[in-house]
Amino acid sequence: MEQLTQALREIAGADHVLCADAIPDDYTHDEALTVKPARPDWVVRPDSAEQVARLLALADERRVPVTARGNGTGLSGACVARKGGILVSFERMQRIVEIDRENYMAVVEPGVTLAELDDALRPHGLVYPIVPGERSGTLGGNVATNAGGMQAVKYGVTRNNVLGVQAALPGGALIRSGGKFVKSSTGFDLTQLLIGSEGLLGVVTEITLKLRPRLRDRATLLLPFSTLDQVTAAIPALIATGVDPLVLEYIDIMTMAAITQHTGMDLGVPQAIKETAMAYLVVVIEGRDADRVQQDLELSGACALELGALDSYVLPPQAGSNLLYAREQAFWVAKKAGASDLVDVVVPRAAMAEYMRAVTEIAQRHQTLILGCGHAGDGHGHLSVFQPDAAVRAEVNRALFRAGMRLGGAISGEHGIGSEKARYFLELEQPEKVALMRRIKRAFDPNGILNPGALFD
Amino acid sequence: MEQLTQALREIAGADHVLCADAIPDDYTHDEALTVKPARPDWVVRPDSAEQVARLLALADERRVPVTARGNGTGLSGACVARKGGILVSFERMQRIVEIDRENYMAVVEPGVTLAELDDALRPHGLVYPIVPGERSGTLGGNVATNAGGMQAVKYGVTRNNVLGVQAALPGGALIRSGGKFVKSSTGFDLTQLLIGSEGLLGVVTEITLKLRPRLRDRATLLLPFSTLDQVTAAIPALIATGVDPLVLEYIDIMTMAAITQHTGMDLGVPQAIKETAMAYLVVVIEGRDADRVQQDLELSGACALELGALDSYVLPPQAGSNLLYAREQAFWVAKKAGASDLVDVVVPRAAMAEYMRAVTEIAQRHQTLILGCGHAGDGHGHLSVFQPDAAVRAEVNRALFRAGMRLGGAISGEHGIGSEKARYFLELEQPEKVALMRRIKRAFDPNGILNPGALFD
Repeated sequence: MEQLTQALREIAGADHVLCADAIPDDYTHDEALTVKPARPDWVVRPDSAEQVARLLALADERRVPVTARGNGTGLSGACVARKGGILVSFERMQRIVEIDRENYMAVVEPGVTLAELDDALRPHGLVYPIVPGERSGTLGGNVATNAGGMQAVKYGVTRNNVLGVQAALPGGALIRSGGKFVKSSTGFDLTQLLIGSEGLLGVVTEITLKLRPRLRDRATLLLPFSTLDQVTAAIPALIATGVDPLVLEYIDIMTMAAITQHTGMDLGVPQAIKETAMAYLVVVIEGRDADRVQQDLELSGACALELGALDSYVLPPQAGSNLLYAREQAFWVAKKAGASDLVDVVVPRAAMAEYMRAVTEIAQRHQTLILGCGHAGDGHGHLSVFQPDAAVRAEVNRALFRAGMRLGGAISGEHGIGSEKARYFLELEQPEKVALMRRIKRAFDPNGILNPGALFD
Repeated sequence: MEQLTQALREIAGADHVLCADAIPDDYTHDEALTVKPARPDWVVRPDSAEQVARLLALADERRVPVTARGNGTGLSGACVARKGGILVSFERMQRIVEIDRENYMAVVEPGVTLAELDDALRPHGLVYPIVPGERSGTLGGNVATNAGGMQAVKYGVTRNNVLGVQAALPGGALIRSGGKFVKSSTGFDLTQLLIGSEGLLGVVTEITLKLRPRLRDRATLLLPFSTLDQVTAAIPALIATGVDPLVLEYIDIMTMAAITQHTGMDLGVPQAIKETAMAYLVVVIEGRDADRVQQDLELSGACALELGALDSYVLPPQAGSNLLYAREQAFWVAKKAGASDLVDVVVPRAAMAEYMRAVTEIAQRHQTLILGCGHAGDGHGHLSVFQPDAAVRAEVNRALFRAGMRLGGAISGEHGIGSEKARYFLELEQPEKVALMRRIKRAFDPNGILNPGALFD
């Protein structure tokens, strides 16, 4: 062990290798509610892709597990290292290498946070439009989990906005895949394979991102409905208008109550409506022209009223962004309220109401409180499960995953499988598919050093 | 051989297994200009995913090569079978399984053509926006090559619009990856890995596509410039307006002359401008509102004039679509004119003019005529190489690929590597990356039965 410590110090510098008890608690966990913290044997903070590659060569030779970690904002335990392993942390690799205004691209190191990138892009009138709830998350972490967020309905998820990566592989090779081009048919797409692979295939050391013009105008519509079925039914009609909303979010009444109570926010919804509304749809329109945004908002409001919305409220700009901010923070509200687990099943968006009925049935059957809000435009729910008994909770989770898969969905829309949901993934996914993924894993990592504990066991 | 014929007949039915000399010439080639036709030993026309899976189980057991083919509109020889092998052809698997208007998705079999899908979607006000030049191409072929086309600048390429696939693997497993959901972080993304893999990893048997509302209004702007540098420089400014053009196409004067002569088209450009113009930029704007499209067109025209456009012509609707149609047919014009090869290098879009200067230099050095037009918004050129001498042509191609890669680009933006460019791919790509791709290939296809001859040899 002493010898490996020495070798790691030679790679990253003595100050940037932490051992055993000198490792702060921060490095032992992410934000997953049910994953036990674990202290790695080493935390290494490399300064360059070459250092990461050297580290992987060394670890591969010694068969030492390696887990990559950004800022630990993940929700699936995918960046919690194994005891006996190395945790690679990217606080020194947080350079914005380039903002390319001609190609509308940015090149960043994996430790750059979404907030830092956004600050750097704002003066150029550019934006990277993927905004998962937590802006202190790193781009490396976003790539590892294929992060999504509320604007995915318009801009897609991480995989739709990453054009290239540099990655270090076990054995020490440093490869480049993709780059500053938007299309390629030149061999298998390793970029897309690495995105969402939760640190099991390689360690991403540089990322090329697609940027967009930053549109100035934005407006928010709040639409109360009597049932979630009506919300679900309204989505295709809203999309058919051609308006292309930035956000289509549903908030159930419990979550709405928690948000408004928690923040003291008054959204101007009269008591009579509040009493009838069982689900809210939040529509955000953005554009480069205030008049058009206004027209689009009116069109969306009129369309929603025809589809049974109880009313339509244009929120003042500040209230609109406050509501979305509060919605993003719903996780923290749920956590504070004692939620024991989070589930983010994705289904075909038209099946959302049916899925939520299945959720209600599961909640009743297992006497478990389950609250939900979610990305209605994407068919993506965020469920907070309140069930302290681990065995019952496992039954509840399994039932929630099964119900989603039965409707043609998948276990996780953006949180990832990590270590938290690995057993469900292995149990519920098609065995031939899991076997193929294991073979792909071996193609990258024959000795299985990368992030053991996640996905496959 | 007789025994295998019998087994194939049991799978697909006697009428749907063609042998040796009974195989029509149509099955022996695609549209690549330099790939020799080759007659497989069998052509099999399966009727279902299960038949494809059984065929792959059989072929894997007997170690017989299998090549999948749509309508043979490819440009890289990726669907030309090996002698001694089986060609799987999808004319019986051309069902549109479902048009899902709530989820804005379509489920299709691989033999459905783009034209057939478009006809089926039109009455529903929906569109699948990926339109490579050849609409008789199949969706299966589009998936295999990650087809792009002129509207990629707005809608991306095939991989950005395919949400799920069913695929048969060597050995006979039938897997489903992705589905009717727009985001997932549930294991490695096999869908994305299969897209663009040119038939080397699996045979896709069903495809789930993302659809959009069909926008009615469309207008075309023709912008002559004195230099291609000015065209390249205009792109980011046009994008910064926020207009989000559907098409940003450049056409060089030779191609423009060929198009207008070939079609007898008069675009209303005065002789004086024609004599100064060295490159044309075609901008198409689409929308759901004629006034907005008009405004956006004016904004784009004004922006282009500021950036040095010699003039700005709003083309009458019919002339606009004729020009684009003619541009799509440029390949056939080039072929008729005696082009000996096509190259579709992609570079960062800001490097397009620099790339074209390198192309001119290569053309002069090798005394070879090279004409080009391309997707300016994507940095993607379509070069027609006129050089009958194969050895010289290989030097020219190599130089064209090298020049593109030096500028941060890739060998092929949408045509694929196939058998035509395999030697350049193997020579010019990073060896560690090629080795990794070979290992991935083995993870899917340990016996190497799928499309030998393409990509790797």
